[in-house]
Amino acid sequence: MSLTMGWQSQDPNSNTMTRVQIERRELNADDVAVRIDYCGVCHSDLHRIHGMLGEKDLVPGHEFTGVITATGTSVTKFAVGDAVAVGTIINSCGQCAMCQIGQENFCLTGATTTYGGKGNLKGGYSREYVLTEKFAFPIPEGLDPVAAGPLMCAGISVWEPMRAAGVGPSTRMAVAGLGGLGHLAVKLGVALGAEVTVLSRTADKTHDALALGAKSLLVTTDETAMAQSAGRFDYIIDTIAADHELSPLLRLLWVDGSLCVLGNPLMTGPRLLELGYGRKKLTSSGTGGLPQTAELLQFCADNNIAPTVEVLPSAQVKAALDRLAAGDVRYRFVLDMSDLDDPTTPA
Amino acid sequence: MSLTMGWQSQDPNSNTMTRVQIERRELNADDVAVRIDYCGVCHSDLHRIHGMLGEKDLVPGHEFTGVITATGTSVTKFAVGDAVAVGTIINSCGQCAMCQIGQENFCLTGATTTYGGKGNLKGGYSREYVLTEKFAFPIPEGLDPVAAGPLMCAGISVWEPMRAAGVGPSTRMAVAGLGGLGHLAVKLGVALGAEVTVLSRTADKTHDALALGAKSLLVTTDETAMAQSAGRFDYIIDTIAADHELSPLLRLLWVDGSLCVLGNPLMTGPRLLELGYGRKKLTSSGTGGLPQTAELLQFCADNNIAPTVEVLPSAQVKAALDRLAAGDVRYRFVLDMSDLDDPTTPA
Repeated sequence: MSLTMGWQSQDPNSNTMTRVQIERRELNADDVAVRIDYCGVCHSDLHRIHGMLGEKDLVPGHEFTGVITATGTSVTKFAVGDAVAVGTIINSCGQCAMCQIGQENFCLTGATTTYGGKGNLKGGYSREYVLTEKFAFPIPEGLDPVAAGPLMCAGISVWEPMRAAGVGPSTRMAVAGLGGLGHLAVKLGVALGAEVTVLSRTADKTHDALALGAKSLLVTTDETAMAQSAGRFDYIIDTIAADHELSPLLRLLWVDGSLCVLGNPLMTGPRLLELGYGRKKLTSSGTGGLPQTAELLQFCADNNIAPTVEVLPSAQVKAALDRLAAGDVRYRFVLDMSDLDDPTTPA
Repeated sequence: MSLTMGWQSQDPNSNTMTRVQIERRELNADDVAVRIDYCGVCHSDLHRIHGMLGEKDLVPGHEFTGVITATGTSVTKFAVGDAVAVGTIINSCGQCAMCQIGQENFCLTGATTTYGGKGNLKGGYSREYVLTEKFAFPIPEGLDPVAAGPLMCAGISVWEPMRAAGVGPSTRMAVAGLGGLGHLAVKLGVALGAEVTVLSRTADKTHDALALGAKSLLVTTDETAMAQSAGRFDYIIDTIAADHELSPLLRLLWVDGSLCVLGNPLMTGPRLLELGYGRKKLTSSGTGGLPQTAELLQFCADNNIAPTVEVLPSAQVKAALDRLAAGDVRYRFVLDMSDLDDPTTPA
């Protein structure tokens, strides 16, 4: 057992986090210890802090990068000093039909999540983490460890469904919501050759959308523009975190198109008739398996893609959470965890 | 204008139909007149008679076969005496993006349906029909006109989504509901090379399912069998006419599988989380376009596939509707309209 420092939630009604000492297990033979340098701030961290799963005293954080500081006796994939990235899942049964096809995210016995959940682990808003080497990813040459963390949740959550849908040069793709997931969906879609349009309630983000590589921005509150855009897209990836109607998005799809809804935990609005008229598909996804995650990291390294991040000292975690809740982030906060080494960092 | 006879609904609370005289328009240049010999009885006829769309005095019927008795001056596709089949749509704008790709069923201006709807036409429970030649289909050599009618609604409604989903030799397919649509989904799926399983609430239909070519029947009320079948299918086509939960069916799908729901006008049950866990797709469909309908007829002729029908004199239309409402049909009633020529046929 070793001790490290982290930021723990106190109250489901507040984003205030307390600097606490936490324990990490002794290394099993296949474990690695990771010094966490940078941890992304995910919108789901907010939901969880606010009690969505009934948890308390959470140390959130499930998209981080760092350096290997120790290895178990049977570890072969890593050596001390290697740069690694860790995402939302840190173990799975390895035996079920899903694990055997590299979809550990859909493990039939339930994967072990990086914080909270069935293992009740403390997550990546901390200075050290211990996990089996299987779920740690080498950071490919060319990928910036400061920005790479958000690829491990925001990135893989859009990458895997986009790849499964065959997004490529012939795809007319739309991205609803331009936050942590959405901005990566635009960057990745553009790099895959798709013609990408951003869907937004106002025209305010037009400049940003074009800067990310999108061809255009469609204002979803403009009824004329929406009517003219009926059937305009083959694939829509919906990353909007708040509850919203899906029917207007379904109308934008071409025959056999798919609407992949990631951000919205409830299904409101669409009736089957709306799916049937044009034989449109409604789908969703849930992060990604090990092979797909490794593929994403390599793709980003090869194509010079990184999340657009704002780095804050980890002691400013409450400010990051408050600003995230207010939508004031372009496009992902990353916490620099090195201030946890300094005992004078304020609680 | 010409006069013919048909069976008209009287009361949304009853299946009693009255023998009435109805008018058919003078032939336009591109019209054909069809003597209706056989008309299938569709479950949606029941819904419509019972006021689902607020209509009254309906002459239902939108899957019929017959013989050309007259042609307009510009008709080139047919001659008097040709055997033809007519389905659910008898016109569309021909100009919109959907019509131009042969998806007249999704015409953006709204297709003209064979009965009721925006044209308030009298349908195929009658002895004569007039329509533009474009929406009449030659019956391919080898297809029995007595049984071919149900291909035009029940058949095309399952054929088009199955083809769009790529159902073929590698497909593990399930069919929920073994009625007019379901029994054709089994026959067509088997002929396309898929491994077909029937989903049913009891084991009662096991013999029928195997006789239609299915490999097995899965009893959906058997929780153990359902749990063991998680992830067993790539594609499920759901033809159940009554409201029902979709979540148990979604659990039967493999990753990236599709559940195509045809029979159920409301969407109950599934939350997006259930779609996301396995990246499953929920879809639906709505009959078929002209090219797909012609393809279906030829496929059935080539593969010796026909709806399994029970033929009744059209004067027994109420008995057909009553038995359909009670689920007492294997698998589609077809009305023989020739008794309408006899003035002594009871009203």
